[in-house]
Amino acid sequence: MGARQREIAVSEFFLKNRHLLGFDSPRRALLTAVKEAVDNSMDACEEAGIVPEISVELEQTAATRFRVTVTDNGPGIVKSQIPKIFAKLLYGSKFHRLRMSRGQQGIGISAAGMYGQLTTGSATRILSRTKGSKTAHAIDLQIDTKSNKPVILSDKEQDWRPTFQNVDETGVPTGEPHSYAHGTSVSIEMEAQYQRGKLSVDEFLKQCAIINPHLTLHYRLALTSKADSKSQSANTGEQTAAAGNGNEARVTYARALKEMPKVPNEIMPHPHGVELGMLMQMLKDSSSRTLRAALSSDFSRVSDQTALQICERAGLNPKANPTRVAHQEAEALYSAIQETKLMRPPTDCLSPIGEAQIVAGLEKEIRADFYTSVTRDPNVYRGNPFQIEVGLAYVKPEDTRGVEEMGQEEPIRLLRFANRVPLLHQPGACAITKAVVGVNWKSYGLTQPKGALPLGPLVLMVHVASVWVPFTSESKDAIASYEEILTEMTLALQECGRRLHVFLNKRRRDMEAARKRNYIELYIPHLALGLKEILGFPDREKQRVEHDLKKMLEKTHLDV
Amino acid sequence: MGARQREIAVSEFFLKNRHLLGFDSPRRALLTAVKEAVDNSMDACEEAGIVPEISVELEQTAATRFRVTVTDNGPGIVKSQIPKIFAKLLYGSKFHRLRMSRGQQGIGISAAGMYGQLTTGSATRILSRTKGSKTAHAIDLQIDTKSNKPVILSDKEQDWRPTFQNVDETGVPTGEPHSYAHGTSVSIEMEAQYQRGKLSVDEFLKQCAIINPHLTLHYRLALTSKADSKSQSANTGEQTAAAGNGNEARVTYARALKEMPKVPNEIMPHPHGVELGMLMQMLKDSSSRTLRAALSSDFSRVSDQTALQICERAGLNPKANPTRVAHQEAEALYSAIQETKLMRPPTDCLSPIGEAQIVAGLEKEIRADFYTSVTRDPNVYRGNPFQIEVGLAYVKPEDTRGVEEMGQEEPIRLLRFANRVPLLHQPGACAITKAVVGVNWKSYGLTQPKGALPLGPLVLMVHVASVWVPFTSESKDAIASYEEILTEMTLALQECGRRLHVFLNKRRRDMEAARKRNYIELYIPHLALGLKEILGFPDREKQRVEHDLKKMLEKTHLDV
Repeated sequence: MGARQREIAVSEFFLKNRHLLGFDSPRRALLTAVKEAVDNSMDACEEAGIVPEISVELEQTAATRFRVTVTDNGPGIVKSQIPKIFAKLLYGSKFHRLRMSRGQQGIGISAAGMYGQLTTGSATRILSRTKGSKTAHAIDLQIDTKSNKPVILSDKEQDWRPTFQNVDETGVPTGEPHSYAHGTSVSIEMEAQYQRGKLSVDEFLKQCAIINPHLTLHYRLALTSKADSKSQSANTGEQTAAAGNGNEARVTYARALKEMPKVPNEIMPHPHGVELGMLMQMLKDSSSRTLRAALSSDFSRVSDQTALQICERAGLNPKANPTRVAHQEAEALYSAIQETKLMRPPTDCLSPIGEAQIVAGLEKEIRADFYTSVTRDPNVYRGNPFQIEVGLAYVKPEDTRGVEEMGQEEPIRLLRFANRVPLLHQPGACAITKAVVGVNWKSYGLTQPKGALPLGPLVLMVHVASVWVPFTSESKDAIASYEEILTEMTLALQECGRRLHVFLNKRRRDMEAARKRNYIELYIPHLALGLKEILGFPDREKQRVEHDLKKMLEKTHLDV
Repeated sequence: MGARQREIAVSEFFLKNRHLLGFDSPRRALLTAVKEAVDNSMDACEEAGIVPEISVELEQTAATRFRVTVTDNGPGIVKSQIPKIFAKLLYGSKFHRLRMSRGQQGIGISAAGMYGQLTTGSATRILSRTKGSKTAHAIDLQIDTKSNKPVILSDKEQDWRPTFQNVDETGVPTGEPHSYAHGTSVSIEMEAQYQRGKLSVDEFLKQCAIINPHLTLHYRLALTSKADSKSQSANTGEQTAAAGNGNEARVTYARALKEMPKVPNEIMPHPHGVELGMLMQMLKDSSSRTLRAALSSDFSRVSDQTALQICERAGLNPKANPTRVAHQEAEALYSAIQETKLMRPPTDCLSPIGEAQIVAGLEKEIRADFYTSVTRDPNVYRGNPFQIEVGLAYVKPEDTRGVEEMGQEEPIRLLRFANRVPLLHQPGACAITKAVVGVNWKSYGLTQPKGALPLGPLVLMVHVASVWVPFTSESKDAIASYEEILTEMTLALQECGRRLHVFLNKRRRDMEAARKRNYIELYIPHLALGLKEILGFPDREKQRVEHDLKKMLEKTHLDV
């Protein structure tokens, strides 16, 4: 043992384990690539305070190949950063800060490029123009997978002229094409398969538009002619929702709001979420001169006075050099922190969607009888602030148009979101599914098989917002089951469930009353006729009796 | 964008995402640490041709802390390699070779140390003595998590004298304690919780012993006194199987065989499993002088003649320099390889358990009416050879001692293994569960709720052996659902199911016959008495008639 031991580059590791990143099949790879690029574009625009307009293009280049191009109107990227951002795994600006964003790992877009390179041998093409520049940088990149370093294949300045056709929902152009003043475009050719359905790019983009009402999204799908692509399921089955004219289809999701969501603030770690080893590391790295100052400046919710109390409780000198705190002293400090009551972390690091916006989003997409939503107060898991939001729409049972496969006997439709990103794959592994299954929906008037989703024409959406979403894998499809997160979700779901119950009860009573009333109304003329015969009414009198009886009946039912 | 972009060390990444590695809760962390250490010890022993003897010790050091120590009789580790092996993520000898082994990622044991460091601030202690050395290296290590580099805290030579008490299954010492001539001991203190049950260290070690009949395993569990550890569930609930005397318990699983499993060989990649980008990389890295030589020496199943054919089919010069093949030429080569018929990869890189050994293992642990097993021929997914084995034991319905929670109305017990390692967590995410659920067990005589495991007193074990097991996460708890793997599992399960069906049918017929016979036997004396009265038999004649009737009856039933 010893001779053949060697270092493994993180790019080699993920190349061999590409299923961990969501690149296990050509179909899923297409979705993952789009998702990573759109996440990056959305984050870039919002951070720069730009209302996002994004274009997604899928062009089929061979039977099993697509070119994926995602272009945004973001701030653009300075040239020196482009190679590392797009061709180096574990590189980025979001990992080290505590603030809600879509991307967090610094892996996704480089992994998409690496997958393209692996399956087609081609390069990732970046075109980026920053504000005020005359030209755009055009850079072709690959990853040296053995060292996880970018390799620049070509690098030049060129015109920035991606233009975007404004089209309506049926693909008809509306007005002049336009181009962005600045932005970034990333283009990757890869082995891929396009297919409609619940796990499709179409579905992902549609849900993106629901959860990001401030986003304008252009989507273009260009398949090769049917003769060339018999293997494409898109052409053998139904046409995509987007597919209008022949093999090229366009759809635009126009923004519903111009206001941007509140830009979240970065926070410092909360002391109650910091483990002993991390505390030791933070003290060692502190730039403060005293322990007291280190506590109050490197952590959130620790005032100068609280810092002093903590030091005293731990029996440590508040003026000690924080970089020289020994193991046992750190243990005492750690215990003292646990014993000290502190305010919860600040929550302006989160940007929830909001109850009204959730209902508006659902109303836009789903024709329902009843809508409701709950945004819970923020809470904390392992020191990380998070917030749960739930929305619910009860579809008219007799009107499930546009919401396929819904009905009294079908499982409800569950939409999962994390930091405003739709999650499509791995529902079974996700804490959201676990929480929904764990709620007793029978007590809210729904049928629910044991250990399964409830049945009924219900659309349920759950949004987890956090400075660090604990995904179960690097592909970011499912959320790990932290107890605190499950509890918050359960409470939000139960609140929505109770409201649904009130609605369903009322509707049942109304329907019951209507049924009864119909039944009785049927007999009123006979009753009136009987009375007429017995009492010798004139016809006019009979009509008056019928009218009075009906009125009486209505009154009774209003009191039900 | 740009200013705050920076590199993320893989250790930082996994520290923040420690749930990906199986360190999300104190209970699971304990199991994961034991698992990683035992995997390494087993691999080290087997590679060196040493029949493994391993000791696992869990010592509770505080209410929520344990020291985990795993010691083996392996070859020991040279001093220069110790720091990187135990305190650097993505470092090892197993990642870059195609050969079945338990470890494959070069993450596990360093991650366990990093978790210990994070939660207790302490160091990983290594003691290792190589063959022929007088003393052992004793090294205390931590990881610099910001750079993923080992930090050596202390480093000295000392005596190697871990001694092991031989004990029988009830914890009674048998004979003299002994020590190993050489080996490695790793010791980590960490936040942890000990709990019995299906996800416990006890269960893991027991299954290890089943699947590795050549392993002798000593297990020692030392809990602090009950008064000190009220929070420990081990002390509030049942005692562990291992717990015998007060708060310290020992158990030894003695080996059943002295023969080692066949040591697998390393193979070259199979051309049909190599993607275009990888092919380009391999050619670029080739040390061969010609394309033809590169194809025949860097890949398996490509003879010199086949290499020539491939070059010709691709329209390339067989004498071309492989490091200078252009993108388009590589595409042609890739197509030519796909079109060329090649033998399947060699399978001596795998070391299956074997049908007889599986049944022996089941017989040792489970009292059953019926045992069977299937070892399928090796197959290939994405170029990686793999092999599926299934074992089945049908427990006597009236005798489920030692197999708790079994019965006609309970789900079967499914044991999952990958490369001889038991998988306990995440059954729902695993291809093994998916395959078992997907088989129609009703047609083999079992009850099966829709989309669930079948019911009945059945123990089913499935083993996946591969040069690269595609786990769904770095914690290696569940296997990804590659189509080829699912298919092989389904075929093996169906074969076992058919055999079970034959057994269950026969048993049902036997029981039916016994029931009928009992019924008829009840009436034979009455029949004989009736005959006697009608025909005026003497008593002796009546007995003869009874005897003959019984004989007739038996004969009839043998023909059923």
